[in-house]
Amino acid sequence: MKAYMEWQARAVRKNGPTEWFPAEVPGNVQHDYGKMMGWGDISYNDNVTRFRETEDYTWEYRTWLSFEEREGAKAFFVSEGIDYRFDILIDGQKLISHEGMFTRVELDVTGRSGQEMIIRIHPHPKSEFARFEDRDQANQSVKPPVCYEWDWHPRMLVSGLWQDTYIELRSDDYIRRCEPFYALNDDYTRAELRFDVDCDVRPEITLYDPDGNVAGSGRSITVLNPRLWWCNGQGEPALYRYIARTPGHEVSGTIGFRRVQLVMNEGAWVEPTGFPKGRSVAPIQLELNGRRVFAKGSNWVNPDIYNGKIDEKRYEQLITLARDANMNIFRCWGGSGVNKKAFYDICDRLGIMVWVEFPLACTNYIGTDKYLKVLEQEATEIIMNLRSHASVVLWCGGNELFNNWSGMTDQSLALRLLNSLCYQMDRDRPFIMTSPIFGMGHGGYTFYDPDKQCDVFELFQKSDCTAYTEFGVPGMPDVDYLRQFIPEDELFPMKKDGVWKLHHAFGAWGEERWACLDVLNRYAQEELDSIDKVVEMSQWLQTEGYKAIFEEARRQAPYCSMAINWCYCEPWKTAANNSLIAYPVVPKKAYAAVQSALRPVMPSARIPKFDWKAGEKFSAELWLLNDSPEAAEEAIEAEIELGGNVYKMISWESGCVSANENRIGPTVNWILPDAAADRMTLTLRTASGKESSYTLSYRPRMAKKVSRQMNV
Amino acid sequence: MKAYMEWQARAVRKNGPTEWFPAEVPGNVQHDYGKMMGWGDISYNDNVTRFRETEDYTWEYRTWLSFEEREGAKAFFVSEGIDYRFDILIDGQKLISHEGMFTRVELDVTGRSGQEMIIRIHPHPKSEFARFEDRDQANQSVKPPVCYEWDWHPRMLVSGLWQDTYIELRSDDYIRRCEPFYALNDDYTRAELRFDVDCDVRPEITLYDPDGNVAGSGRSITVLNPRLWWCNGQGEPALYRYIARTPGHEVSGTIGFRRVQLVMNEGAWVEPTGFPKGRSVAPIQLELNGRRVFAKGSNWVNPDIYNGKIDEKRYEQLITLARDANMNIFRCWGGSGVNKKAFYDICDRLGIMVWVEFPLACTNYIGTDKYLKVLEQEATEIIMNLRSHASVVLWCGGNELFNNWSGMTDQSLALRLLNSLCYQMDRDRPFIMTSPIFGMGHGGYTFYDPDKQCDVFELFQKSDCTAYTEFGVPGMPDVDYLRQFIPEDELFPMKKDGVWKLHHAFGAWGEERWACLDVLNRYAQEELDSIDKVVEMSQWLQTEGYKAIFEEARRQAPYCSMAINWCYCEPWKTAANNSLIAYPVVPKKAYAAVQSALRPVMPSARIPKFDWKAGEKFSAELWLLNDSPEAAEEAIEAEIELGGNVYKMISWESGCVSANENRIGPTVNWILPDAAADRMTLTLRTASGKESSYTLSYRPRMAKKVSRQMNV
Repeated sequence: MKAYMEWQARAVRKNGPTEWFPAEVPGNVQHDYGKMMGWGDISYNDNVTRFRETEDYTWEYRTWLSFEEREGAKAFFVSEGIDYRFDILIDGQKLISHEGMFTRVELDVTGRSGQEMIIRIHPHPKSEFARFEDRDQANQSVKPPVCYEWDWHPRMLVSGLWQDTYIELRSDDYIRRCEPFYALNDDYTRAELRFDVDCDVRPEITLYDPDGNVAGSGRSITVLNPRLWWCNGQGEPALYRYIARTPGHEVSGTIGFRRVQLVMNEGAWVEPTGFPKGRSVAPIQLELNGRRVFAKGSNWVNPDIYNGKIDEKRYEQLITLARDANMNIFRCWGGSGVNKKAFYDICDRLGIMVWVEFPLACTNYIGTDKYLKVLEQEATEIIMNLRSHASVVLWCGGNELFNNWSGMTDQSLALRLLNSLCYQMDRDRPFIMTSPIFGMGHGGYTFYDPDKQCDVFELFQKSDCTAYTEFGVPGMPDVDYLRQFIPEDELFPMKKDGVWKLHHAFGAWGEERWACLDVLNRYAQEELDSIDKVVEMSQWLQTEGYKAIFEEARRQAPYCSMAINWCYCEPWKTAANNSLIAYPVVPKKAYAAVQSALRPVMPSARIPKFDWKAGEKFSAELWLLNDSPEAAEEAIEAEIELGGNVYKMISWESGCVSANENRIGPTVNWILPDAAADRMTLTLRTASGKESSYTLSYRPRMAKKVSRQMNV
Repeated sequence: MKAYMEWQARAVRKNGPTEWFPAEVPGNVQHDYGKMMGWGDISYNDNVTRFRETEDYTWEYRTWLSFEEREGAKAFFVSEGIDYRFDILIDGQKLISHEGMFTRVELDVTGRSGQEMIIRIHPHPKSEFARFEDRDQANQSVKPPVCYEWDWHPRMLVSGLWQDTYIELRSDDYIRRCEPFYALNDDYTRAELRFDVDCDVRPEITLYDPDGNVAGSGRSITVLNPRLWWCNGQGEPALYRYIARTPGHEVSGTIGFRRVQLVMNEGAWVEPTGFPKGRSVAPIQLELNGRRVFAKGSNWVNPDIYNGKIDEKRYEQLITLARDANMNIFRCWGGSGVNKKAFYDICDRLGIMVWVEFPLACTNYIGTDKYLKVLEQEATEIIMNLRSHASVVLWCGGNELFNNWSGMTDQSLALRLLNSLCYQMDRDRPFIMTSPIFGMGHGGYTFYDPDKQCDVFELFQKSDCTAYTEFGVPGMPDVDYLRQFIPEDELFPMKKDGVWKLHHAFGAWGEERWACLDVLNRYAQEELDSIDKVVEMSQWLQTEGYKAIFEEARRQAPYCSMAINWCYCEPWKTAANNSLIAYPVVPKKAYAAVQSALRPVMPSARIPKFDWKAGEKFSAELWLLNDSPEAAEEAIEAEIELGGNVYKMISWESGCVSANENRIGPTVNWILPDAAADRMTLTLRTASGKESSYTLSYRPRMAKKVSRQMNV
């Protein structure tokens, strides 16, 4: 039985505290403060900058404990997470001091109904080892570094009672813990299930199969021929349900029987050749229930600047869109921290595999005793909370830690600790120290690579990674959406400073990123003299770019085993992010393109580049992609639309293509005629009604001269 | 007080036990059995093959416990290691069953004087996962796999009481454990030392500095300005000594204050460039007391087939030779297991850094529960025993585990366990999962690489590794030495079967390895029609080859941080091994060459290849190598001897070269004249008397035609 309380909050500044203002719990105190101050929507214009002054405030939450005392029952104050360093005081007496937002807080408050509780939240940690006023400041805490500012995230240091917080009355038969563990035999015909229980009486435990029928009972249950949990596209995400009951208490949860491993990518063992010989690459091929599965999906980032405002409904909307886009995995990027429990429950249910990163990213988390202590406690709690989720398939130490902008290595104590904890507590789940590890690749992040002077078609066809776990093409949302946060007078011409920059179109890692006006101009055959033209061009490149990369990564299977773009969602309204879903849940044009590129069975064209001109020899390799668990067979027709004419190119019968196998077909060759057009579209159609189309840049012999000025 | 016993042993075969025969302890029961059977020196001819029939025997050791019982004292039977799976019975009663040779065995035998003790050793483990009758059979045990046969080691499965074994009387004030731990401050001016003590009374502990003066006392001691432990060539290997005393017991040990880390190799952070971007290489640069040290040394393998027969004296001879050869590191190769304590004591004293590998090599140690349990127990004991040694600078999971012949990966539970144990028990010492890791290289192992069609001069100048931790050039010992184990009628012509093969000249990983007759013939300008000519040619190539590789690796510093050849010693008499020291302690010709190539300050020539002919443009880059902690300056003269004439080439003054820095000088260029010679020698001399010389292959315009037949 849970009882919820009303909360107030106040800021304690150098010159004294503010008045108390109402606080939403779960939530973030900065949100409530901003509301009280009338600072408006954080996504609008430059509103977010107002919060900068609050960074070093101490905050206090206040409530009066209020519950009915019950004979033989104890009352517990519970918060499932408080962000980040805090004390809890009752009637002025400090009862708990703690650092870390992922640890559940429990406090026996029996007999204290009516007393005042204060939760004092200390200023945000800022590491003494920080070189800059940025994410470096997070490198001695287990605070998600993203809020210290990223190329796509404003600086906004949030804190507060971000998780569910309540009073719970507990009788003697309260079930403190009931955690399932199972062992599957080699051929998956038998699961030996046992429950670790912490309770003063013996609860009755009943197991129900995915149809709701009783499948066994007791603390040890043998399940014969269990229905296995499969990810989206590979089968049913079958979940068993258990209920543990005592006379006065009941807990329940789900179990998905499956085995997951990271195995060597096919073909990778033959490398390297010759002396002196190094090691082979690190395995990154997911094997689920003995079947190698191509992991296709997206990088999940915090879907709101206010981590406390995210609720089950938002998770459900976002994850359902991923399922509908044929995705089977989220890489939950370490910079954003760990999600609330509902996220993993929904992924369990919808068959989305989850790669969980600990909250480390892009800086050097130096292994001081103090940091290691907090990390050990927080990581222990994270592992305990997530290890029973079928969807969680991989632990990872954090993001890009082995690159020079981070400076961590295999020797870093924080990563050795995480390996040790995952081994000790959860050894059947794979662990990697970071992404990328040896063999994998991150990037690029633009449609055209200025260093290698090629577009993403060319770049990825030249690449040979075991997994592409970050790659992105920026794209703007619709003009109407831009108008929601960009004042009309700044919308066009686009200013390089101001709101476009603040929302990272020009405030990303280079001033031309993410808007990429240089790239848009490269392909523009008429002047981009309106915001509509700019947006259309940006969306075209994002759409075609994402299709090109996802499909190429799939064609590189089985050596390549993952295609996970950067990024899926976003925490506020951005101007030209690589995201597929605009804040909060607004699919962008590229969403549909990715959905198409991830269909289990589909015709695909390997087109050597994006930009073509009249007289050139155009070519495109035909493929049938199949990452489904069933064989496929398709008859494919290819045609090109150019300048209003449709040219039939080729027909190809794939023959029977096995489950989880791609097949290469013939190459279309065509000397491009001269036509009055600036785009051409290659379309592949199958007799069964599947269609893939690619709209490419085309330049007639007499191309127009274009003015390139459009931003000021 | 230790008391030693007389031992007997017998083999228990299917048809019953043999008679009891005398057994040497420490030792190996196969040795004693062979002696009893009159099988002769195991190194001679094919004697070793006789032992094959004993592999699956059960062995029993027998003694009668014999000691004086003492009032108030307990008697303990102690064996510091029993190889490998065994029971201990007293008066017919089984008191201990154990698997693992690295765990100390202790048994309270108070009151049992006069009773019969039997130690029953079970047959050698042979893994059910073994694909072949070779080292695969070791992949479910913590038994050094080398005894299951290697390309340079005969199959010879040894077992027995291989470590010191005795009865010890212990009073109540016996010190069960007194282990030092220290923390050094950042600038090395202060060491906080504490002792973990396990004793029923409080021992008095005194610390003595390296000169024998008292430096402190008690369980916590602050040492100001400690004299640091340095490896050979970098400073004094300063050792403090502690003595812990109770009225009836005393233990002592040494402490070398130093800090060791693996840091990123210089220049390695800038890689990789471009997108998609992988990780940077793994760090393998040793930093000792804040100073980056170039690690130069050799791979230590078991110096005797009979692990029980190795004693302190042999260790001392071998390690002293390494010290005298300017080496500062041994990589103790995992295939050979872990050495006896004396080895590490001597390395502490002589300043030889030790890279310790756990007993895993070249096969897939599958992480079954049973294997992980034994590995955890044995690794725990190994870490506990070695972690107080200053010389031990690196833990490593094992040899070449991430290559396809092994098939292990970063996911392998055995390696994750070892990383976890080392982190938990010894986090200040670096750990790597295997060698090579990303960036490093193993091989080649011959003077001429048949795949890349180049000699080792060319091969290593084209290579770009962070560390070369295995590379080898085979070379024969002197003819007299060969005669010690090869019967005269097999000596020449060399037979490809028989004793040459058994001693691995032709029995290595290719039938031309290690004798490499194809390579000897490539450079022979007259027929190799005697064993003397073959041996001379083989020794020439080994000598020049090792100089070329070691010096090239040093020139590639600081990106390259290690040069560790394969291998140092050998476990029996081999015919053409890559070793520098023939069994038991006989330096080969190449030993002096390596000694020369590892001098701290030396002139060095970078010669593009080994084989030259008249009319070609010869060139050689001059370098001054300095990996000492002091600046160097040399005036160098280069001359070439060809056909009896000496040609002066160049003079170069290096100027002042900083500590631990190499400097490149001018290039010698010369159009080679025609001369009646088949070798030429480049000599570099410094004004201070240092000399480096390189004897290269030279072919006049009219080379002789050579018959290439010489083995049958």
